[in-house]
Amino acid sequence: MSCPWVVELHPYERLDDLQYRGRWLIQNTREFCFSLDAVLLARFAHLRPRDRLLELGTGTGVIPLLVADEVARVEAVELNPVTAALAARNAELNGLADKIKVRQCDYRELGQLCPPESYDIVLSNPPYRPIGQGEQNRLAGKARARHEVTATLADTCRAARHALRFGGRLAMVHLPERLGEIVIALHECQMEVKRLQFVQPRQGKAPNLLLLEAAVGAAPGIKVLPPLSVREEGGSYTEAIRKIYGLA
Amino acid sequence: MSCPWVVELHPYERLDDLQYRGRWLIQNTREFCFSLDAVLLARFAHLRPRDRLLELGTGTGVIPLLVADEVARVEAVELNPVTAALAARNAELNGLADKIKVRQCDYRELGQLCPPESYDIVLSNPPYRPIGQGEQNRLAGKARARHEVTATLADTCRAARHALRFGGRLAMVHLPERLGEIVIALHECQMEVKRLQFVQPRQGKAPNLLLLEAAVGAAPGIKVLPPLSVREEGGSYTEAIRKIYGLA
Repeated sequence: MSCPWVVELHPYERLDDLQYRGRWLIQNTREFCFSLDAVLLARFAHLRPRDRLLELGTGTGVIPLLVADEVARVEAVELNPVTAALAARNAELNGLADKIKVRQCDYRELGQLCPPESYDIVLSNPPYRPIGQGEQNRLAGKARARHEVTATLADTCRAARHALRFGGRLAMVHLPERLGEIVIALHECQMEVKRLQFVQPRQGKAPNLLLLEAAVGAAPGIKVLPPLSVREEGGSYTEAIRKIYGLA
Repeated sequence: MSCPWVVELHPYERLDDLQYRGRWLIQNTREFCFSLDAVLLARFAHLRPRDRLLELGTGTGVIPLLVADEVARVEAVELNPVTAALAARNAELNGLADKIKVRQCDYRELGQLCPPESYDIVLSNPPYRPIGQGEQNRLAGKARARHEVTATLADTCRAARHALRFGGRLAMVHLPERLGEIVIALHECQMEVKRLQFVQPRQGKAPNLLLLEAAVGAAPGIKVLPPLSVREEGGSYTEAIRKIYGLA
């Protein structure tokens, strides 16, 4: 399908069909481009019509486009000025500028930027790897999106805790290998993991992603969901993934 | 197969074939009887020939019989005097009284009972549920084995930490829902989860057990293994379980 509007693209930009309610996304090929992780996170979170939602590190703003219809309002912060500007343009492009507010800022300073406990749910697809681990991407924007150059796990949990009301929820996508650190960082911010799902490339394989929901002030006790397999043996998407992508 | 020895059984006792190296186990049907969990834990732990191994809460001593050939020596503690006596009889019955030492004691007092940091690996199949949760078994011995009537997660972690040398490992089987509490209790005792596997009744189902290995003084970072399925769709054991049981 081609985009129904005339969209002015700048150098290095491309326009992608989100295959969801006719929404389109401008991305910059020199910056971090969204992947399955963002879609999985948007669909994993339990959203309610009255939720005030905050996304920490929205990139080009794909998650706001996927959740805007399910909640009362969406705010999204992004440190990288190039992608923050794209996120705002993407909200406008899709006629959602009234519902989605994008702010370019460093969420480590959220304490000075927004009143405490003013959101019901926070979403975060944070940098996955600590600095100095894995091959760091040469392009600065991509490095910030993939490695904890700017925000660590503790920074993300502290920002979420500041933003969330008591009982509010943080939904996050991350690497399985960091689960221990995540549990501890959340616990240090009065949040407990309540729901956990591992994502495996194929059935019977080791997981390469995890999805979790934590709640502020909750009692311990995790509901571990059945693992989510991305592809069938033959290589096609599983029915579960096709549903998440809106293809089934 | 019938047992090659004449074994004197007391009231309520039964004799089971472990289907492992011709070993047999006396159990008391009024006390907690071993299940798949114990066998999975014995096979999940990475054991080395020079390891000094301690089991916390051995019950009738099934795990010592399954690991004795893989390590240098096995000590096992058990609070319940009925099952502790059975564990000692079981070691003797199988000609392993020299290698397996059973002590009837409360492992919450391990600090007074054994020198610190004197083991390389600790195994624990602890009570799964906090007091007041789930249907408590009316029989006292079974209640202690299933609920944290005597030892909590924190007690188990503290005992393991006292027993283990720096770098030593704790292998544990537990419920998925308690993973968050386990990670935190371990961390508070300077132990980090390093290896984690979920056990699911069938492929694609939510897990009902977890197996984990933690190490004293380790850096964070968990290797999450592929999930282990117990049964095929048809109801028979999977090949992985048949291997663990020594049937494949």
